[in-house]
Amino acid sequence: MIATTPSPPYYAVIFTSVRTDIDDGYGDMALRMVELAHEQPGFLGVESARNEQTDGALGITVSYWESLESIRAWRQQAEHQIAQQTGRERWYETYKTRICKVERDYGFEQ
Amino acid sequence: MIATTPSPPYYAVIFTSVRTDIDDGYGDMALRMVELAHEQPGFLGVESARNEQTDGALGITVSYWESLESIRAWRQQAEHQIAQQTGRERWYETYKTRICKVERDYGFEQ
Repeated sequence: MIATTPSPPYYAVIFTSVRTDIDDGYGDMALRMVELAHEQPGFLGVESARNEQTDGALGITVSYWESLESIRAWRQQAEHQIAQQTGRERWYETYKTRICKVERDYGFEQ
Repeated sequence: MIATTPSPPYYAVIFTSVRTDIDDGYGDMALRMVELAHEQPGFLGVESARNEQTDGALGITVSYWESLESIRAWRQQAEHQIAQQTGRERWYETYKTRICKVERDYGFEQ
């Protein structure tokens, strides 16, 4: 689902990752993190997609936030910190996180 | 592949879309647009992922750019304009484009 976000400015966290082939709780963690994010102050929405294994298994998750403060609080949320740590130890080959200010947006619907 | 981008600030275009079930040249167009983008002044890189049909077929493409001017020029590139038009007529159920300034980034590698 495309996230329903307010008029800019707001903030986006682009999290691009390549997975290892270790599953070991990854799916449960991913669902739990989305659930938790929804409870965070300033959370606006999230979009996520991952290619099939054959395509390098690249995944992109973009979460949207009201402010840099709300992003900082989410990064430091206790259960999320454990997931980040486990991610580095187990689930991710590599990742990059980009913190952005959304300045303009526009859309299309059939 | 995760895009190799310079130190912030730089710009990102987050293009989130849901496809129709019409294929009709979509794959060729997508490849051609990536090829064309690489030739544009100010282009820094692109990342793309799409879920399987069962998962709502959400796709996310993030392209990275040096400046708002380079994004504007890409949006107006002639062949890209035809692709945008055909996308609305044929390939996309809905999409959203968000223009962002990347303010900070950090990464991890095994």
